[in-house]
Amino acid sequence: MMKTQEKETQIISREPFPASRKIYVKGQLHDIDVAMREISLTETKVHNGFGLTEPNAPVTVYDTSGPYTDPDIEIDVKKGLPRLRESWIIGREDVERLADISSEYGKQRLNDSKLDHLRFVRNTQPLKARMGANVTQLHYAKKGIITPEMEYIAIRENQRIEQLDELLNGDHAYLAKQHAGNSFGANTPQKQITPEFVRQEVAAGRAVIPSNINHPEAEPMIIGRNFLVKINANIGNSAVTSSIEEEVEKAVWACRWGADTIMDLSTGKNIHETREWIIRNSPVPIGTVPIYQALEKVNGKAEDLTWELFRDTLIEQAEQGVDYFTIHAGVLLRYIPLTANRVTGIVSRGGSIMAKWCLAHHQENFLYTHFEEICQIMKAYDVSFSLGDGLRPGSLADANDAAQFAELETLGELTKIAWKHDVQTIIEGPGHVPMHMIKENMEKQLEHCSEAPFYTLGPLTTDIAPGYDHITSAIGAAMIGWYGTAMLCYVTPKEHLGLPNKKDVKDGVITYKIAAHAADLAKGHPGAQYRDNALSKARFEFRWEDQFNLALDPDTAREFHDETLPAEGAKIAHFCSMCGPHFCSMKITQDVRAYAKEQGLSDQDALENGMAEKSKEFAAKGSEIYL
Amino acid sequence: MMKTQEKETQIISREPFPASRKIYVKGQLHDIDVAMREISLTETKVHNGFGLTEPNAPVTVYDTSGPYTDPDIEIDVKKGLPRLRESWIIGREDVERLADISSEYGKQRLNDSKLDHLRFVRNTQPLKARMGANVTQLHYAKKGIITPEMEYIAIRENQRIEQLDELLNGDHAYLAKQHAGNSFGANTPQKQITPEFVRQEVAAGRAVIPSNINHPEAEPMIIGRNFLVKINANIGNSAVTSSIEEEVEKAVWACRWGADTIMDLSTGKNIHETREWIIRNSPVPIGTVPIYQALEKVNGKAEDLTWELFRDTLIEQAEQGVDYFTIHAGVLLRYIPLTANRVTGIVSRGGSIMAKWCLAHHQENFLYTHFEEICQIMKAYDVSFSLGDGLRPGSLADANDAAQFAELETLGELTKIAWKHDVQTIIEGPGHVPMHMIKENMEKQLEHCSEAPFYTLGPLTTDIAPGYDHITSAIGAAMIGWYGTAMLCYVTPKEHLGLPNKKDVKDGVITYKIAAHAADLAKGHPGAQYRDNALSKARFEFRWEDQFNLALDPDTAREFHDETLPAEGAKIAHFCSMCGPHFCSMKITQDVRAYAKEQGLSDQDALENGMAEKSKEFAAKGSEIYL
Repeated sequence: MMKTQEKETQIISREPFPASRKIYVKGQLHDIDVAMREISLTETKVHNGFGLTEPNAPVTVYDTSGPYTDPDIEIDVKKGLPRLRESWIIGREDVERLADISSEYGKQRLNDSKLDHLRFVRNTQPLKARMGANVTQLHYAKKGIITPEMEYIAIRENQRIEQLDELLNGDHAYLAKQHAGNSFGANTPQKQITPEFVRQEVAAGRAVIPSNINHPEAEPMIIGRNFLVKINANIGNSAVTSSIEEEVEKAVWACRWGADTIMDLSTGKNIHETREWIIRNSPVPIGTVPIYQALEKVNGKAEDLTWELFRDTLIEQAEQGVDYFTIHAGVLLRYIPLTANRVTGIVSRGGSIMAKWCLAHHQENFLYTHFEEICQIMKAYDVSFSLGDGLRPGSLADANDAAQFAELETLGELTKIAWKHDVQTIIEGPGHVPMHMIKENMEKQLEHCSEAPFYTLGPLTTDIAPGYDHITSAIGAAMIGWYGTAMLCYVTPKEHLGLPNKKDVKDGVITYKIAAHAADLAKGHPGAQYRDNALSKARFEFRWEDQFNLALDPDTAREFHDETLPAEGAKIAHFCSMCGPHFCSMKITQDVRAYAKEQGLSDQDALENGMAEKSKEFAAKGSEIYL
Repeated sequence: MMKTQEKETQIISREPFPASRKIYVKGQLHDIDVAMREISLTETKVHNGFGLTEPNAPVTVYDTSGPYTDPDIEIDVKKGLPRLRESWIIGREDVERLADISSEYGKQRLNDSKLDHLRFVRNTQPLKARMGANVTQLHYAKKGIITPEMEYIAIRENQRIEQLDELLNGDHAYLAKQHAGNSFGANTPQKQITPEFVRQEVAAGRAVIPSNINHPEAEPMIIGRNFLVKINANIGNSAVTSSIEEEVEKAVWACRWGADTIMDLSTGKNIHETREWIIRNSPVPIGTVPIYQALEKVNGKAEDLTWELFRDTLIEQAEQGVDYFTIHAGVLLRYIPLTANRVTGIVSRGGSIMAKWCLAHHQENFLYTHFEEICQIMKAYDVSFSLGDGLRPGSLADANDAAQFAELETLGELTKIAWKHDVQTIIEGPGHVPMHMIKENMEKQLEHCSEAPFYTLGPLTTDIAPGYDHITSAIGAAMIGWYGTAMLCYVTPKEHLGLPNKKDVKDGVITYKIAAHAADLAKGHPGAQYRDNALSKARFEFRWEDQFNLALDPDTAREFHDETLPAEGAKIAHFCSMCGPHFCSMKITQDVRAYAKEQGLSDQDALENGMAEKSKEFAAKGSEIYL
């Protein structure tokens, strides 16, 4: 065991980001500390300023990396992360600690001594809602309660706003101006995100806070189109490769680079034990597709699945702390024939399983017929629904077809049922969709699903680039994020080809952070452009270190720069390798600006001044020549 | 010398693409052979067909790789490529072969024996229009002449249509249906691209055919929004790295992966000689920014630039065969103060040079004041204008500002002047632009520049991802391509950081092929989706080799697959590594389809059949449960 632990602690990525420190912002309604990352910047050397410098304010950014990047927190994957939310949950006095886990399968695994070496040893039993109680954030929100989770989220989503205000009152006039121009230009609902606004969005069903009472280690986050666009990273072992330690590090690694939630899609051996390790060590919500594990329990024979077996699997996972379940309850018997003439049929694994079951038994999907019983389980642990799109298109040729939209309408019907039970719900979307057919997906989803948050895979905008589908899909993801999708499920370069390795996971996460941020900018999310402006200012002023440190991936930015100009000196030099030491456009522009200043041309007066006169002359001259 | 040649022939990439062969389609109006790439596919194993198979028609694709991928053609970079267009040009009887090159600088280089070891030895003198003649494709088009270049382009752009027709009459009903749905759904002007349509688009100025009479080696291609979206790759040596042989291979390498044109942005030593090697060996049009070389001639001192020096540089490059010139004639003295308060000032190198010159001399941009004289040179060799956006934004904060749009209006004014001289013209565009501000760029460009083709750099949709700007820009490029941009200038992962290496060039080209193809699909370009459908069908049928071979990058697709499942057997196995051998969604779907067939559910009758009855029952049952 010691050996294992050492191995684990070696494997886990903990190094803080360059020039960054973890800061904690206090709550006002609740005793909470909201974790953020602060990036410090160097000073600006004033051009021709004879050594004068101007300070640059540090930039705080939304941080999904959890305690791992805080050197002051001791990490032991065998103990799991600090249980941040436990006191909040207990304090609500609507839960009870069970004497033992409830699921038959869970007990069976627990009593199997052959698994002792694989098992994460929990020092507490699971929590469950007291008889008759409903412990969902949606339930609290509807009752007008602002939970600590809601305040945490408000502060977390807001951070850049405080900087914006400071900016607006600061002396970086052009930054503020540009910034405001963007912030107020687009369709964002309001300038400031308050705890009350968070509550209202959750109460309306427009946003969800995945927060199983058995996953107190997770830092609260929100999924809704009036908040920052989120991304999910899929991990999972498989029949072919991988180990438990690697799975935990995969989750830590994905969060490090920006994954807002993790889906554990394990299908191989020991997935119960693997999941426990991941949840206990994950600072972000965990999602699963329970039917995958259920299928393992019947040795892959879909026709042998039963409601009872599935029900036990839901309880097993709910008591481990899974925050949201993908449930393919919209794959109805009567929709299956609609896929028979598709180019790529049914490509959703869960959808295929349920289709096979329906046809084998000539019965309606048991996830649909037992949906209200599922709701009863969900609200006892606050597990959120992610209603799966089992009939999503697997190719452009199948995009927006009858099968896909028929299922979407059923997901809308199920959303209303989930809400009747105050169960939080998001809707999964495609898939493969060409650009001109993306908007229709968003519009139909908002209409049929009463504005429940949309959670899309990509969409991929072309089928011809296997090996680059993180890119084909980032194009669609950025667009649908702009249109209103709340969370984007990442796609790695290995999509359609194989299992992602560590590099693929990072490539997928960074690519999707780009898509999500591009969408935040287009939506005019307050403060979204602050980091872009700070990086661009650093770029223009040749503050290379600041440019690297403000990047989504500082390591790669620095590495690429050093490939061409390794010398430390180059990072402070007033030229870059693209133009060479002899000439650089940014240097010239600085000269132009300095020159313009000498000529009194640096401000708007320029146009009424001598230069404007000269300009008119030239304009006139131009006219002579060209008219 | 021999040694050099051996080295070169080693360096140049010539390997044909897997399962591909070069085919040549005969013209009908002219004696021309249009090069295309044909990808052969394996047979489909009919599910439960007891060994029965169905053939899959080969897929021909647009091919920019030139003679290099035709094993029957002998390549010797010292001789250069076959002069495909020479007889067409001579045959028009409006050109003369000069006794000697015209530019002073060119002569000076030619007579410098120290450069002999670097020099490409031409066996012919340059061509020039006869006194008073105009040899531009625009001039011919306006006169109603369909040139061989125009017919070549019509056949080249069309190829997939022939397959579409074959498909529509073939038995792959679902492919055809889906395909037609897409082709006729969007805003494409017509189903078939004819030589006459090409002529009309060129005559209207909506499309250009970059085709300097001194670059007969280039295969004709067209840039216009009613044709396939094209991409450009920048290459160039620099003060820091690189050699002539590498530059030639860089161009060959970029074309191999799909670059439709190459811009040579060399700024280092011997750029005159480097350019000669590139042009003589390039199967695609070459563009340059002549002011870069002019600046080298005055040792980087912008204020020392003169019209006479620039004019000599234009002639020098025109007689080498450069197909289009980026000319920053829109950077007017009166616009410069508009950039003074920007976050990133003037980031265009050409823009910076001209701004510095204007301020140093307090005079209007000499490219603007001498524009008609430039037109005289352009039409004597059929060099196309690429009117540079010297004031493009270098950050989101500066997007769509007064300086950018003021210059765009001037570019529109210059376009009319160029057209007065029948000089082909495209307009360069930004830059850094958030998604919600992209459309405005396209609309203003169409309005101000009378529908002259738009040629954009990206645009980058966020500033915070240095190291990944091929992706931040591919998002914007795909969108603006859909809106109507005719050519996309690629961005590599090294943008803002350093010089692209061979891998970076390939990553940039493939990423931009994705953006361009996504745009073609969204525009509903006839036949664009054929390759996607063929690949998706192969994917669904587990024809792994076909999936790889149809991919934009077969090598990477195969390599990624083999990382997880190296065994040859896996490539024909009916499972993939994502789900493992035990279970696979696509296999289940095949079972579903087979099962559905047995039940008579495979066609639309399904809904009127027994299954529909059953469905109704369940629907009713569902209603009881849920209402």
